[in-house]
Amino acid sequence: MHNPEREKRHIAILGSTGSIGTQALDVIERHSDLFEIELLTANTNSKLLIEQAIKFKPNTVIICDENKYQEVSIALSSYYIKVFAGIDSICDILKISNIDIVLTAMVGFSGLKPTIAAIKGGKAIALANKETLVAAGKIITSLASKYNVPIIPVDSEHSAIFQCLQGEHSDIEKILLTGSGGPFLNSSIEEIASATKEMALNHPKWKMGSKVTIDSASLMNKGLELIEARWLFNISPKNIEVVIHPQSIIHSMVQFSDGSVIAQLSNPDMRIPIQYAFSYPYRIELNSSRINFPDLKEMTFFSPDLKKFSCLSIAYDSLEKGGNAPCIMNAANEIAVQAFLEDKINFSYIPEIISETLLKCQFIAEPDIDSIFSTNFEARKIALQILNKKIHKS
Amino acid sequence: MHNPEREKRHIAILGSTGSIGTQALDVIERHSDLFEIELLTANTNSKLLIEQAIKFKPNTVIICDENKYQEVSIALSSYYIKVFAGIDSICDILKISNIDIVLTAMVGFSGLKPTIAAIKGGKAIALANKETLVAAGKIITSLASKYNVPIIPVDSEHSAIFQCLQGEHSDIEKILLTGSGGPFLNSSIEEIASATKEMALNHPKWKMGSKVTIDSASLMNKGLELIEARWLFNISPKNIEVVIHPQSIIHSMVQFSDGSVIAQLSNPDMRIPIQYAFSYPYRIELNSSRINFPDLKEMTFFSPDLKKFSCLSIAYDSLEKGGNAPCIMNAANEIAVQAFLEDKINFSYIPEIISETLLKCQFIAEPDIDSIFSTNFEARKIALQILNKKIHKS
Repeated sequence: MHNPEREKRHIAILGSTGSIGTQALDVIERHSDLFEIELLTANTNSKLLIEQAIKFKPNTVIICDENKYQEVSIALSSYYIKVFAGIDSICDILKISNIDIVLTAMVGFSGLKPTIAAIKGGKAIALANKETLVAAGKIITSLASKYNVPIIPVDSEHSAIFQCLQGEHSDIEKILLTGSGGPFLNSSIEEIASATKEMALNHPKWKMGSKVTIDSASLMNKGLELIEARWLFNISPKNIEVVIHPQSIIHSMVQFSDGSVIAQLSNPDMRIPIQYAFSYPYRIELNSSRINFPDLKEMTFFSPDLKKFSCLSIAYDSLEKGGNAPCIMNAANEIAVQAFLEDKINFSYIPEIISETLLKCQFIAEPDIDSIFSTNFEARKIALQILNKKIHKS
Repeated sequence: MHNPEREKRHIAILGSTGSIGTQALDVIERHSDLFEIELLTANTNSKLLIEQAIKFKPNTVIICDENKYQEVSIALSSYYIKVFAGIDSICDILKISNIDIVLTAMVGFSGLKPTIAAIKGGKAIALANKETLVAAGKIITSLASKYNVPIIPVDSEHSAIFQCLQGEHSDIEKILLTGSGGPFLNSSIEEIASATKEMALNHPKWKMGSKVTIDSASLMNKGLELIEARWLFNISPKNIEVVIHPQSIIHSMVQFSDGSVIAQLSNPDMRIPIQYAFSYPYRIELNSSRINFPDLKEMTFFSPDLKKFSCLSIAYDSLEKGGNAPCIMNAANEIAVQAFLEDKINFSYIPEIISETLLKCQFIAEPDIDSIFSTNFEARKIALQILNKKIHKS
């Protein structure tokens, strides 16, 4: 980025109409001298995808929902923009086209397939889809290593760890994974059990998509991040400590063998890790609000309450069990969160559905990629059955 | 340090009997496979110097106080250790001998001459003598650049900044220089004015030598560090913010153009920055106590009170004035602190003596190294005159 002669970086955004996707476009718009959009994809939000395409003039757009293909195609017919439909089209494009960096900002397990395609296509991965590493961390990191493809994390915590590791030549002694504690940090078990969707969606520090906001309220998000960190940084789970830090200023830390800890801090702004993934290893200007330390007054730290937030406990156990357990956990969580968002279940049913699914779904110690896809399919089916029984009962 | 075939690093410790010196020897003793002592020097503490020499078997020891030469020489006569006396002997040895790293841990302005000799001898500098950069920052950093010699800071704050900058390829937007606030953080102006030596020496967080402990109580230490940071990191003074952080866990921070802040944290332990300067760019094991974040509970931040701590204000002004002003300030401070330690003056006289010396001593806008030495001489003379008048009056 220091070199004005440098060629622009060509970027694909998978999930451009979501929270991460739109913030990524904001970053790119501010640095159009450095970045160029090659590909935008959306799940169903055709209207916003069309707007974005007209503004950013990508080479290609893909709408996953095939029912909306015609709408998008007609709207963009006069812009020399290629339009395709379906998730397989994403995989095809990623294998061949002139793309340097792929931002994987889709929601949930659906990110796995395109991420594999991008790695096989030799594209750098800006990873905003944590479920990919949760479900198939070992497979994905091995694949990235085989294809010599960097995975640059976009989650604020993992970006923080990644930033803290720059210029370090030594092993990590410990990762301190921080989290705000979410909206229920100071609620009782009973209050959490009967929490409404509105309460769970009211995150104190971050404005995010609804899936990750619910995960933040249950602390499952921290559990997913724990598993993500284990694979991204090749570290034993016992050397990852979750620290609740309600102010969300320190985004995570790394401790080294001399006792020194390096931390990354900022006011909460997802554009910082998104931009860093695009500009890495350089930093470029961003109009994020700067921390005013004297105004900040204090930063506090607590251990998480694993009794109150049993999802985090389930994540620790799944990671320790290994194999396809995190994939089962993730699938059941997606089903349960979706049901909660549709007002079908109480908040306390989320960990129950996950735990029961983990008990019922077949364990595979060394899953290959096909087993991961079948595990995801099986686990969802089982989780839905458990869910329906619970709805029926209540 | 990863490479077991690597040759040992040969180290000189200037000021081995002081607080930094003894902690450096502790580090070296624990990693005798990596480091070897070539040279130990002491000002007057012959007894400890002899003990250290017998234990670490350096090639050479130098006692600055020539009256103690015979004592040291006789004590070490059967150990194949060369013994010299006087500060000029240090300079001679540094020009020629088999030394990789020179730890400059002498107190005050006296560190300047040997540091210049070490740079001209092509040795890496582990800088623990901040007064060197305060008095002659521009000259020393230019000289280091000319001789292609790295200056690795050992002050905990500057080591923190240095650690935060590893792996960064971008300009610094701002340095956040943290300080505990010292023993008088919550005292009134009146209480500080009449503070006793015992009160000033009772630092809440760090166990250090008496000169730096008094400087910490007056916040002159933060002022000296401000000037040191300006030269070490080639940054405009307006982009250095002093932040009072009483817990002394964050040792300083760097803010970049994207709003991201990188910080270095640890429980207070000077062996961490000392060891880092020796092992750089690697980290090696150290039995420092690890931070327990949940136990820590909180970290707080304040702006410094420049009215209560006028020494810090004087340092900002001297740095802005430039030329030989910081050298004058440093010389007057050394005289005033010495007098305070000898119970000759009140604590509030320290900034008064410095301010009056700055007014009376001749300003030189572009001092060369000879002007720095003569400024130091003149400023001390003037400061002593002012001091004596004050003692006479009171």
